[in-house]
Amino acid sequence: MDSENRVILNVGGIRHETYKATLKKIPATRLSRLTEALANYDPVLNEYFFDRHPGVFAQVLNYYRTGKLHYPTDVCGPLFEEELEFWGLDSNQVEPCCWMTYTQHRDTQETLTVLDRLDLDTEKPSDEEVARKFGFEDAYINGELTPWQTIKPRIWSLFDEPYSSSAAKLIAIISVFFNCVSILSFCLKTHPDMRVPVLHNVTVVTGRNRSSWSMIKTHTDPHVYFFFVECACNAWFTFEIIVRFLVAPNKRLFSKDMINIIDLVATLSFYMDLILKEGTKLISDSDLLEFFSIIRIFRLFKLTRHSPGLRILMQTFVASASELVLLVFFMILGVVMFATLVYYGERMFRNPFNEFTSIPDGLWWAVVTMTTIGYGDMTPKTYIGMCIGALCALAGSLALAIPVPIMVNNFTRFYSHADARAKLPKKRRRVHPVEAPRPKGGALKPGAGQPANSDNFSLQGSLKGPRNNA
Amino acid sequence: MDSENRVILNVGGIRHETYKATLKKIPATRLSRLTEALANYDPVLNEYFFDRHPGVFAQVLNYYRTGKLHYPTDVCGPLFEEELEFWGLDSNQVEPCCWMTYTQHRDTQETLTVLDRLDLDTEKPSDEEVARKFGFEDAYINGELTPWQTIKPRIWSLFDEPYSSSAAKLIAIISVFFNCVSILSFCLKTHPDMRVPVLHNVTVVTGRNRSSWSMIKTHTDPHVYFFFVECACNAWFTFEIIVRFLVAPNKRLFSKDMINIIDLVATLSFYMDLILKEGTKLISDSDLLEFFSIIRIFRLFKLTRHSPGLRILMQTFVASASELVLLVFFMILGVVMFATLVYYGERMFRNPFNEFTSIPDGLWWAVVTMTTIGYGDMTPKTYIGMCIGALCALAGSLALAIPVPIMVNNFTRFYSHADARAKLPKKRRRVHPVEAPRPKGGALKPGAGQPANSDNFSLQGSLKGPRNNA
Amino acid sequence: MDSENRVILNVGGIRHETYKATLKKIPATRLSRLTEALANYDPVLNEYFFDRHPGVFAQVLNYYRTGKLHYPTDVCGPLFEEELEFWGLDSNQVEPCCWMTYTQHRDTQETLTVLDRLDLDTEKPSDEEVARKFGFEDAYINGELTPWQTIKPRIWSLFDEPYSSSAAKLIAIISVFFNCVSILSFCLKTHPDMRVPVLHNVTVVTGRNRSSWSMIKTHTDPHVYFFFVECACNAWFTFEIIVRFLVAPNKRLFSKDMINIIDLVATLSFYMDLILKEGTKLISDSDLLEFFSIIRIFRLFKLTRHSPGLRILMQTFVASASELVLLVFFMILGVVMFATLVYYGERMFRNPFNEFTSIPDGLWWAVVTMTTIGYGDMTPKTYIGMCIGALCALAGSLALAIPVPIMVNNFTRFYSHADARAKLPKKRRRVHPVEAPRPKGGALKPGAGQPANSDNFSLQGSLKGPRNNA
Amino acid sequence: MDSENRVILNVGGIRHETYKATLKKIPATRLSRLTEALANYDPVLNEYFFDRHPGVFAQVLNYYRTGKLHYPTDVCGPLFEEELEFWGLDSNQVEPCCWMTYTQHRDTQETLTVLDRLDLDTEKPSDEEVARKFGFEDAYINGELTPWQTIKPRIWSLFDEPYSSSAAKLIAIISVFFNCVSILSFCLKTHPDMRVPVLHNVTVVTGRNRSSWSMIKTHTDPHVYFFFVECACNAWFTFEIIVRFLVAPNKRLFSKDMINIIDLVATLSFYMDLILKEGTKLISDSDLLEFFSIIRIFRLFKLTRHSPGLRILMQTFVASASELVLLVFFMILGVVMFATLVYYGERMFRNPFNEFTSIPDGLWWAVVTMTTIGYGDMTPKTYIGMCIGALCALAGSLALAIPVPIMVNNFTRFYSHADARAKLPKKRRRVHPVEAPRPKGGALKPGAGQPANSDNFSLQGSLKGPRNNA
Repeated sequence: MDSENRVILNVGGIRHETYKATLKKIPATRLSRLTEALANYDPVLNEYFFDRHPGVFAQVLNYYRTGKLHYPTDVCGPLFEEELEFWGLDSNQVEPCCWMTYTQHRDTQETLTVLDRLDLDTEKPSDEEVARKFGFEDAYINGELTPWQTIKPRIWSLFDEPYSSSAAKLIAIISVFFNCVSILSFCLKTHPDMRVPVLHNVTVVTGRNRSSWSMIKTHTDPHVYFFFVECACNAWFTFEIIVRFLVAPNKRLFSKDMINIIDLVATLSFYMDLILKEGTKLISDSDLLEFFSIIRIFRLFKLTRHSPGLRILMQTFVASASELVLLVFFMILGVVMFATLVYYGERMFRNPFNEFTSIPDGLWWAVVTMTTIGYGDMTPKTYIGMCIGALCALAGSLALAIPVPIMVNNFTRFYSHADARAKLPKKRRRVHPVEAPRPKGGALKPGAGQPANSDNFSLQGSLKGPRNNA
Repeated sequence: MDSENRVILNVGGIRHETYKATLKKIPATRLSRLTEALANYDPVLNEYFFDRHPGVFAQVLNYYRTGKLHYPTDVCGPLFEEELEFWGLDSNQVEPCCWMTYTQHRDTQETLTVLDRLDLDTEKPSDEEVARKFGFEDAYINGELTPWQTIKPRIWSLFDEPYSSSAAKLIAIISVFFNCVSILSFCLKTHPDMRVPVLHNVTVVTGRNRSSWSMIKTHTDPHVYFFFVECACNAWFTFEIIVRFLVAPNKRLFSKDMINIIDLVATLSFYMDLILKEGTKLISDSDLLEFFSIIRIFRLFKLTRHSPGLRILMQTFVASASELVLLVFFMILGVVMFATLVYYGERMFRNPFNEFTSIPDGLWWAVVTMTTIGYGDMTPKTYIGMCIGALCALAGSLALAIPVPIMVNNFTRFYSHADARAKLPKKRRRVHPVEAPRPKGGALKPGAGQPANSDNFSLQGSLKGPRNNA
Repeated sequence: MDSENRVILNVGGIRHETYKATLKKIPATRLSRLTEALANYDPVLNEYFFDRHPGVFAQVLNYYRTGKLHYPTDVCGPLFEEELEFWGLDSNQVEPCCWMTYTQHRDTQETLTVLDRLDLDTEKPSDEEVARKFGFEDAYINGELTPWQTIKPRIWSLFDEPYSSSAAKLIAIISVFFNCVSILSFCLKTHPDMRVPVLHNVTVVTGRNRSSWSMIKTHTDPHVYFFFVECACNAWFTFEIIVRFLVAPNKRLFSKDMINIIDLVATLSFYMDLILKEGTKLISDSDLLEFFSIIRIFRLFKLTRHSPGLRILMQTFVASASELVLLVFFMILGVVMFATLVYYGERMFRNPFNEFTSIPDGLWWAVVTMTTIGYGDMTPKTYIGMCIGALCALAGSLALAIPVPIMVNNFTRFYSHADARAKLPKKRRRVHPVEAPRPKGGALKPGAGQPANSDNFSLQGSLKGPRNNA
Repeated sequence: MDSENRVILNVGGIRHETYKATLKKIPATRLSRLTEALANYDPVLNEYFFDRHPGVFAQVLNYYRTGKLHYPTDVCGPLFEEELEFWGLDSNQVEPCCWMTYTQHRDTQETLTVLDRLDLDTEKPSDEEVARKFGFEDAYINGELTPWQTIKPRIWSLFDEPYSSSAAKLIAIISVFFNCVSILSFCLKTHPDMRVPVLHNVTVVTGRNRSSWSMIKTHTDPHVYFFFVECACNAWFTFEIIVRFLVAPNKRLFSKDMINIIDLVATLSFYMDLILKEGTKLISDSDLLEFFSIIRIFRLFKLTRHSPGLRILMQTFVASASELVLLVFFMILGVVMFATLVYYGERMFRNPFNEFTSIPDGLWWAVVTMTTIGYGDMTPKTYIGMCIGALCALAGSLALAIPVPIMVNNFTRFYSHADARAKLPKKRRRVHPVEAPRPKGGALKPGAGQPANSDNFSLQGSLKGPRNNA
């Protein structure tokens, strides 16, 4: 009889019925090995009880029925995967139509991990957290901190956590102030009005045995005040970087940080500059030296330390590296092609005003056209060149418009998750909560939710009785 | 026996089953304190009855089972949070994968509150609403309005609610007309064709004891008609602002409104102008005065009072302030960096046509390039400068393209909600409905749906019997 | 006892339970008036049976429980509204958080109605549909069509439905060809190379009693071949518009169609041109005439008749009129403000190369800068002007970027629905299916699904027994 | 009695109830033909059992109740369609509000098929897969491969699968190197600094019977080193294309591949060039020859073979062909219209500096303005021309902004699916899995999930008993 082939599965109170044969379709899973000897088999009602989500189970059972694993869209991805793991199923078997659902929460997880690392919180960490950061955890708990261990985190907070105290805020403001002054001085000292001419005595032989001398201007130097300003700034930078290095919780990570490297090199470049100038007072060609000082402008990036938004933006560029490469590569492809086309196009017919003397010159035109800047220093003059120009502009607009949304998407994901994160109470923000002090529900097995690797999944053990059973 | 450890929860007719141990996992909640003494325990069926949403409860119970709180995506966020609140659970415990769902309806709520404040409705409010707005509520209900209290709202409607009557519409049209005329006059009077030269007699000593005089043009003045036009406009503006101030329902709010401040300052600037010009008839340097009159152009913003779309756009800029700052900061960072690079880049090789004489000049080029304007007044001439230019253009496109979507998103949210709001009947548009006159279902406890702060949530009281039980 | 206050509602086989008091909360609805006398009350099981969607009912019942109407997101909006209508509930009572869901399918409905009107189908309609279109329906069914009634739709198909036959396709190609030739001729005849100089004999008095004459070129005329080309084109256009008017199914709609009006005016302008030129052979100033002939360029829009994509694009502009107005208004606001600022900004400091001679000139600069065109014919020269320029460019980028997505959204909605529509079999494409010949399920009451206006909803009638009950 | 008209359907354990009349509404379906003689009818419980998804069935049954087919949004489209197919319903009958849901997974399916064809995998295929690709499958299984059959796939892997081995990677690097060198040489040889003047002896008759000769420069030739470089490159290209052709698994597909055709033509053009130059040593006009060599620049597209991102981008353009046509057509429409308007606009008033001498010249201006390039080589000079310019810029921004998102959407769909695909284990990536070796659940009937064409759907057969029943 039909009903004898059936099996009743009471999942969280909802009774699901199916044929026994259906459950055998996917072997080596929890449902394919059901026997009446199980503790959760109820002989009176002739049903198996599982303390799981009944709605999601409908989807799980459908996998047995149709052989196709679809994700439900009314529950969260991780919730479904936890259920799959409980039933001993492999979430990789997902159908192509659900791939996006399958990967979506993995992306979210990645995003949140990155945000955690970016350390966007603006709340003072507790003493314990700070001690853990510095590796003094044991000493802290035992109350055996050495004076240096006590003072180090305090200095660190002063210089690295502007929100931790008013003094820290003041130091942050000083740091930003010197940074801005240094960059401003760097820019302004190139302005003609800020430079003083360097005069040299030149002896000119004016006639027989007679020589006169005159002053001639060989080049200009920045006003001497800039030197004082730079000395002040660099004194502060030197002090700051030394202190920050000394109190860094992790000196290796500190040395690897891009911004610290820039800071160090920029400061060193100032001292090198100083030494070289002293030694070469007479050599007037300091342009080369100035060129190397270009590294100092990258101190701008030090300012990003104080803006979570900018840090997210930087992170976006890092995370979108492959899209950036794609964009640049596509632009180069287009630029080279259109430069060649316009070069030959402009030479096809008589064109006395031709500005495209070579393909390398055409490259600049193609860049200017594809990015729709259009300086107008080079323009096609023949109708054929104009057509190529029109195509080039269109291609450029598309080249920029098409891959950028992927980057925009990355940014939006980071930004909106950072936003969502900021709205939660601080203790809920960590993605991987510290297992030990779970606020409620301490009876939960730690890691019960972490989808175990299906290879390690011990089916025998878990078949003895329903999980979470006393 | 297995089934003895189980508990049956009849939620809205659907029976959910779980282990008693499962319910104990999250202590101090409604389900962890179930006892058979409760009024909603049915000893015959051995089940607890709760008159709640059965589907959502599956998700709630799953929180007990797995220790992880996921939001369902088939019901509205607020609905789920109301259920959570009923079951005594904390919605903050949400898993990271559901953070976006968690914050989404909070954003919606914020958006709707802002829209409510923007007062976009174009329907005449009832007399009672007006009276409440003016604080005459009690007097209105008792019918004891003084004549001024009767006339004040009428004048207010005339000047501030253009849709309320034909007269109000006429006044709005007059106001817009004078505004446009004033701005037009402001712009046109600078045009050379609209200015008359001011001539001065100058005595010229032409020879010994002989002097002749001639007329010389020192500067130009706007045509005198502009003065009459401005007098007319300002007369209206003065009248309008005085009346509007007198009948304003809330004089403090009125004085704080940006548009009113602009209006006042602009009108005052006209009178100051008038006085100063009278007093300094002989002083011809009225350019400085004109410069201060620049505030009058901001009267343009008065026009936004008549366009809901523009008001939403303005609100978007206000709400996106942090993104705007981010964008501007990022642009500055890029501009300074590329200006420096191009300045040194163009000086690296011999370049007789170098236009980058200093970094501050380079800043303008960098701005023009990053925004892809490309006036062409400065262009790099060496290959290295061109490469920097190409990178600058690319960086500029990205700098603009990446943070803008966040702002766009803000605008779209405001705009589409305003749109959705406009499609609803007026009485349903308020986000926080006035509690008293609920059209249907008067038996509902007021505020039953407002998610109570979980600290205040009195569990003892609500455990006595199921809520909503007679 | 608790269970006596309860009521069981068997909705589609799923038993929902609630308190009787809960159902009374929203009066004058189907559930608030339940009595045991109803035909669908089962005294044995003590339950009321309703043959409705059980899942959606959970949401409906929750409205009674919480007094808040939330839309479920796992079913379609119209499906939920149909259920609401069955239960006698008002869908306007929706909570603010669900407003977007509430309006979404209304937007979809609007979109589909517009698409229906755009008539994008490229399949030959059946004879019956054609007859209905022409209003010959009765005659067609009775087989009593007059010869003109038989021939009219055929000619109409030839000229208006290019996909209906090869001849129709040929006529469409001819039409497009003449259109293109006409526009090409219109453009080319202004080119200097295509024009012939008009020479006049001028008698010059060279000396006493002696006069010579010479030829002088007063102006140029287009080559005479262009006249022949235009005659040919206009002959076709005249023929086409007359025939199309004669066979139009609805002459009033035909006369109102923008494209037909353009076509007519353009053709008339040619004839007027012809007459006037004949009459004024001697008057050489034909520029004015040519100016009026500008209407002919709008014949370009005739080409949109042959591209569904372009018609959707045009429709997008129509549907986005308010956003376009907003965009233009915002641009004007920005342009006027920045023109004023730059005018005064450039005059603040000594600036010998100032190009901003008046605010109206500044308007052009502001437009060119805000749209990021940057011709470079006017550029600020002082640092203050440059700062204003930078802000102007940024404001322009935002002004364009922020309202455009609303328009983009409109287009995407139209386009993707047109795409989805094209993938369905033709008979399923109509939004409002013709009621009579429903392919399956003829027993369904017509209009059962159309959400009746809740005012007309006759509750008494429908309470007699469950709808759809035999 | 009411309950006698009812029928109970036990679908997967959940009991659905409805009226018998409801089931008759859609004839010729599984549910309309229910009889008690069916094997799955249980006379005790008076119910029919179906081993299907119970949640989805609620939606299916609702179709019977309301006559309207809505898609549920909590399950995947294909899952719902499989259920519809089981119940004998036609998924085409979907309501307009669900059209987007209906087409969405069809689009996904298309996208995945395209991605499969793009062959983005970077993992070495197994020997069996390679043999199947080459059509040696039978020989491979029997181990009877000829030496050529053994060596051919190896060489093919070397040249066409860079990730398969280090040698293959080396060959790929060589290929890219020669490609880059060839393109670089092509560009650089046009630069004046890289060209040597060609001198000719010219005999000049300077006086009576006296002649002298001088060298004159007629034109320039690229430096001879470029010739050697090109020889080397083309030698490699010749070798590469011959080898790749010989070992191609499918010579017909190989010959049809655009990139191979470009490669071949470019290589041939070099040889033709060589021959012609030899033959026409004396003819100095080699510009024409150089022009034909323009095909060589398209070798750039060979580089796309090595970048999955670029291949997706190319595919996007192919898939967005209709949108591109729409964009180009709309741009042309706008360009022609604004060129005409500005031409007449600039001539309306006296304008001595008019740069718009004809409409064809205006076309270039309109292109430059609509794409917001703005070279500044032509600008309107009158106020009316400026207004047209402002409108043109706005129209251009919209013309580009509105259809591009459709293309962006196509790209994002391709890109994100490729991304999702890359995260899955390789054997799950194929969209149409090979039927034979299904890893788990071998008992499933092959193709059970493929939605059968409803015409072929044999209802009689499937009514005998529930599918999947033993």
